[in-house]
Amino acid sequence: MANLAWLNGKICEIDDAKVSVQDRGFLFGDGVYDVIKIYNGNPFRLRSHLERLQRSCNAISIELPDSIGEVELVIRKLIKESACADGFIYMQVTRGCAPRDHYFPTGIEPTFLIYILDLGFPSLKTNFKLIECITLPDERWMNCYIKSTNLLPNVLALQKAKEAGAGEAILCRPDGTVTEGTRANIFAVIDGTVRTHPESRLILTGVTRNVVLDILQKASIPVSEEAFSIDDLRKASEVWTTSTGHEISPVKKIDQHDIDTAVPGPVCSLLIEEFWKRVEAECG
Amino acid sequence: MANLAWLNGKICEIDDAKVSVQDRGFLFGDGVYDVIKIYNGNPFRLRSHLERLQRSCNAISIELPDSIGEVELVIRKLIKESACADGFIYMQVTRGCAPRDHYFPTGIEPTFLIYILDLGFPSLKTNFKLIECITLPDERWMNCYIKSTNLLPNVLALQKAKEAGAGEAILCRPDGTVTEGTRANIFAVIDGTVRTHPESRLILTGVTRNVVLDILQKASIPVSEEAFSIDDLRKASEVWTTSTGHEISPVKKIDQHDIDTAVPGPVCSLLIEEFWKRVEAECG
Repeated sequence: MANLAWLNGKICEIDDAKVSVQDRGFLFGDGVYDVIKIYNGNPFRLRSHLERLQRSCNAISIELPDSIGEVELVIRKLIKESACADGFIYMQVTRGCAPRDHYFPTGIEPTFLIYILDLGFPSLKTNFKLIECITLPDERWMNCYIKSTNLLPNVLALQKAKEAGAGEAILCRPDGTVTEGTRANIFAVIDGTVRTHPESRLILTGVTRNVVLDILQKASIPVSEEAFSIDDLRKASEVWTTSTGHEISPVKKIDQHDIDTAVPGPVCSLLIEEFWKRVEAECG
Repeated sequence: MANLAWLNGKICEIDDAKVSVQDRGFLFGDGVYDVIKIYNGNPFRLRSHLERLQRSCNAISIELPDSIGEVELVIRKLIKESACADGFIYMQVTRGCAPRDHYFPTGIEPTFLIYILDLGFPSLKTNFKLIECITLPDERWMNCYIKSTNLLPNVLALQKAKEAGAGEAILCRPDGTVTEGTRANIFAVIDGTVRTHPESRLILTGVTRNVVLDILQKASIPVSEEAFSIDDLRKASEVWTTSTGHEISPVKKIDQHDIDTAVPGPVCSLLIEEFWKRVEAECG
């Protein structure tokens, strides 16, 4: 169960993978990343994640050093050599290594890291975890659609949630708009309609978010991708988060206020069931 | 003229200094930094920079692994062993190295990097450089008083300035408030008063900014640390930036509009003269 890493074409154990301190990923957070979940030895929605990594690179003018097809081959090779059944693939691309100066350097190659994190135990493919949330001001930059490694605001907010006994922080812009969590998108059932923040600069277009939207559409459940406020959230009958790492997590409490109805509620229960069916169908 | 690095107590050439890809500085930008200028072999305002590094660490709950006094000794040793006359000291502290998870890990040591960047030529101690600026939306997070390595917004904005033929981007929040540049504070003379954004979460408390404020006070030049707007800026008789790296830079053009009067104007000229006197007095 070696956690293997691939760093610019070379494979080694993750603990031996090192970068220069002059790597712009280290000095400036000048890079992007993506995370894919592996179920039963198979990466779920691999192409969606690779396409998102490509979009993140494009957004900050880094050329992905390999084609998506080549990256896919590397990932499948790493999974195989690691003999990983359940875990994660982490990918990170930085602008590369150069003497420190803010400007984009010329004549350097991006740093491209891919590694496997083996969970070491099988995913329970019916699994969900009830979570409690707190709400916090969304203090992040204005381009959260880019999956960049500038994650300090997310780290600080999630740590604050943990210290308050919660599993996620729901982030709100100064006008009261709920955007997303620190590492998850947020859905709520408000007045019988499923609501989630629309795709915009303020949220990440989650892969699990898109799976959920697709399930909802096929089930003819009314959905509105329209921003909602913290006040709307407080009257929601159901709330859940979606993320690659934690799939669909029903929220039972927000800022010490219990969600009134049984958790998970009917919509969320259906989503969890349908989500795992798709994992089963695609990953076995 | 070796550019020496000190990484968690070990000295090596900067090109040999490496960190794990699991360092949180690389994965999350979970770290802070500071930069000090060396004139004539002496670090300028060393204590101010070390105290700011300490404040940045405090703000994100990283314990600086060494006391300020110990860090000072390391810096003086590095300057001596590098035989550096004019250049920079770069310091970075990250939360350390651990398997990737947003939460603060326990039981790990911070990563502490210090290195010398030798300019290789003497600083002209009467020097200033006229610059042109563009204005751009301030899209950064809400805690710019922390000198964190989440610098992607700064990198992207400064690169945009460069591509527009400018040397700095003046950043404005959505309400029109001018905050600072991508790596400098901004001053303007508006209706006979020197204006600069007050210390707040929205700007970095610049060390050079403080030197300039002190000179202005001693010269009894009227100063108001009160936010001003992009419209105010357009009618300024003088504008300049302050930063450790570029000291005081008079601005001659903003978004293609020339500053009306001769550049540097009378206030900026006095500041440049007085600034270099202090460098001379403190660093020889």
